[in-house]
Amino acid sequence: MTKEHMTISIIKIGGNVIDHADKLEAFLKLFAEFPGKKILIHGGGVMASRLGERMGIMPKMKDGRRITDKDTLQIVTMVYAGLINKQLVAELQALDQNALGFSGADANLIQSEQRPVKEIDYGFVGDVKKVNSTVLELLLSDDIVPVVCAITHDKKGQLLNTNADTIASEIATALSKTHTVNLYYCFDRPGVLIDVTNDASLIPLITEDVFEELKKENVIHSGMIPKLDNAFMALNKGVNRVWLGLPENLLLAAKGKSAGTSIEKRRYDLY
Amino acid sequence: MTKEHMTISIIKIGGNVIDHADKLEAFLKLFAEFPGKKILIHGGGVMASRLGERMGIMPKMKDGRRITDKDTLQIVTMVYAGLINKQLVAELQALDQNALGFSGADANLIQSEQRPVKEIDYGFVGDVKKVNSTVLELLLSDDIVPVVCAITHDKKGQLLNTNADTIASEIATALSKTHTVNLYYCFDRPGVLIDVTNDASLIPLITEDVFEELKKENVIHSGMIPKLDNAFMALNKGVNRVWLGLPENLLLAAKGKSAGTSIEKRRYDLY
Repeated sequence: MTKEHMTISIIKIGGNVIDHADKLEAFLKLFAEFPGKKILIHGGGVMASRLGERMGIMPKMKDGRRITDKDTLQIVTMVYAGLINKQLVAELQALDQNALGFSGADANLIQSEQRPVKEIDYGFVGDVKKVNSTVLELLLSDDIVPVVCAITHDKKGQLLNTNADTIASEIATALSKTHTVNLYYCFDRPGVLIDVTNDASLIPLITEDVFEELKKENVIHSGMIPKLDNAFMALNKGVNRVWLGLPENLLLAAKGKSAGTSIEKRRYDLY
Repeated sequence: MTKEHMTISIIKIGGNVIDHADKLEAFLKLFAEFPGKKILIHGGGVMASRLGERMGIMPKMKDGRRITDKDTLQIVTMVYAGLINKQLVAELQALDQNALGFSGADANLIQSEQRPVKEIDYGFVGDVKKVNSTVLELLLSDDIVPVVCAITHDKKGQLLNTNADTIASEIATALSKTHTVNLYYCFDRPGVLIDVTNDASLIPLITEDVFEELKKENVIHSGMIPKLDNAFMALNKGVNRVWLGLPENLLLAAKGKSAGTSIEKRRYDLY
């Protein structure tokens, strides 16, 4: 098992990219050009909802989280780990990226536990318990590009549905113990906006203090809060940098150019 | 990249095992006890047909091969690489087998080319062109158990449906260049039978001469011919031993005990 120090970029894409063939093609070309060791994390909720509807199973959501009954778990397993993951892997292979697809069950990458029933029964939803990142290190050392979908398992034979943003930050955190890890969240906005209808209201840098202030003043769109919570959790546990923005700005972000929102622990913490 | 010599067992299971929860559980326990380095190869046609029907897409078959149109390719990708592969991986992880799922696109394991249209247009069906087994060697050295489904790719971004028996013999052949490889086909018969309605008509050993004789006399059930052709192709290219039989006899077969049908190049070729 290699233990060499690496700089690793973890890039997360959501359904908005995956669901549009032209956007996806453009993104994958950028991803292929992205320098250094890298891991792609993907969701795919939109496509899963559509397949479910075709089979007469309507999506059930609560606070942006999918309620995962037995049928829904089968659908997300098929769509995330099957259809989307293998299509991404095949398209990256065509771009000479040696991609290898993962669910959290594979090589016991992400062990989770089924969320306990409180006010809501989320069904087969898993909260991450443990990331075993050694297999990723082994593969990254061999210039393989892991492509990870948002399915985990409980190590007792049960697959579980897990939020893809959380998976990205958990993998980033686990790898940051031994490596320098940068985490990039691509989504359908240019970054964190004060006014979601105005792209010019982009906040280029958010520190922990600023985040607390923005939350208190109710300035940030509620859908952003879990993303930012995840980002700060990752930073507090050793991740080097978190970035949020449009997929087309990914290469600019990698070069440290101003594009999207950078999340940092403290503004003046230069080292 | 490690190049140590290994003895590797490649075990293929079909839909008849996968489709019955009790049979599958029993098989996976045996598989977990199976000694040494091992790879599991699986099909899943029955389950794919059922999902397709639920979505209003009827399976189309020709000579035991699925005609794979665009919709069918999506279904087999979801069922083989998603549902079945991840369920197998999760259940093996519960048995402390460090399973990692593969399609042929992952790490460019199996590159195929779409079958040319002659009398029949098979659609998105791939004939194996090249197996890149180095990633399997890397993982086997690290005590990971690859679980491979019957989806391949053309390295140009197109996923393709490929016969699982063929995938098993192609992977066996590729690995036999550097390693000692034994290939086990588990199916719903005790082995090759002269009379398919009579289990006592089992042929315990088939050599190449015997196979030619049996084919000439039309003694072997036509469904067995491609399996045996695959087996002899593998033996002729360096695979050590091929076995066919019931999944429950797998451990007996591993110990060299008489159970199922052994396929060997020549009867008296002791070394």
